[in-house]
Amino acid sequence: MNLKDYIRNVPDFPKAGIQFKDITPLLNNAEAFIFTIKALAGLYDHKSIDKVAGLESRGLILGAVVAYEMNLPFVPVRKSGKLPHNTIQENYGLEYGKDCIEIHIDSIKPRENVLIIDDLLAAGGSMRAAADLVKRLEGNIIGCSVLIELDELRGRDRLKEHDVKSLLRY
Amino acid sequence: MNLKDYIRNVPDFPKAGIQFKDITPLLNNAEAFIFTIKALAGLYDHKSIDKVAGLESRGLILGAVVAYEMNLPFVPVRKSGKLPHNTIQENYGLEYGKDCIEIHIDSIKPRENVLIIDDLLAAGGSMRAAADLVKRLEGNIIGCSVLIELDELRGRDRLKEHDVKSLLRY
Repeated sequence: MNLKDYIRNVPDFPKAGIQFKDITPLLNNAEAFIFTIKALAGLYDHKSIDKVAGLESRGLILGAVVAYEMNLPFVPVRKSGKLPHNTIQENYGLEYGKDCIEIHIDSIKPRENVLIIDDLLAAGGSMRAAADLVKRLEGNIIGCSVLIELDELRGRDRLKEHDVKSLLRY
Repeated sequence: MNLKDYIRNVPDFPKAGIQFKDITPLLNNAEAFIFTIKALAGLYDHKSIDKVAGLESRGLILGAVVAYEMNLPFVPVRKSGKLPHNTIQENYGLEYGKDCIEIHIDSIKPRENVLIIDDLLAAGGSMRAAADLVKRLEGNIIGCSVLIELDELRGRDRLKEHDVKSLLRY
């Protein structure tokens, strides 16, 4: 199955010059959706992972389903102000602006093995910030997996200490 | 399994007077997470549904996993400005402010049977807006399912034409 057939390129979204990779056609096709989740879940043995974390917003969708497929708990990493309980924060620059993400401080315990999921690895700022949050909670980052990697933006270079895997590269 | 044990009440979030129902402890427990998804998916025969729609943000998490459990496509209903392609919009008032949600116009085809999922039914504004979006795309709404229903806010009264189901009532 060629998953790229289900990724829609939307020029100039959210702002001029950005070629946005829209995964909604993939989510809207049961075969492609199931294939994607099984592929992401299959990158690691579920016994080597304690928890799956996913990044807002599309990483919440993919991460939660990957966690479910692996029979593991799910930890949301969200934009600032969205999580209701006690959090720690990381700021980061991204392809089009700046942002801040948070994690609940009670969501990961020291030495828990964590797989981080997002839809897309671009410049790597948000994935790096998420990994830093997990490290601050003393979790072990087993891997950082994404559906789509944009090679040109070299996000992988900002995650050299981690095992980064992607299903599709552009 | 008493799922209420995994719902954390957070007073005065996101603003004074709101008793926020935090589902992150439930997501963070694999047994409770899996139990919840199977319970939501089990409310309808998967053969009677063509697509599952979920509302931003926590409904994206639960809806996507329910879709996956039912082997169905997933359609995100998102806050204004987040979906990259052509959309239709609905405005609604909510417990703490006003908001606008959107759906991609190509996400649901006429006569497709749709199950709408969210984490919480409060005053019913967002669920009603999501149902109206699906109707404008000529989808058949088979059901509106939530994890948590706040009886006092009578959201069910705004959805009288629909089959509304909830796992937990407060």
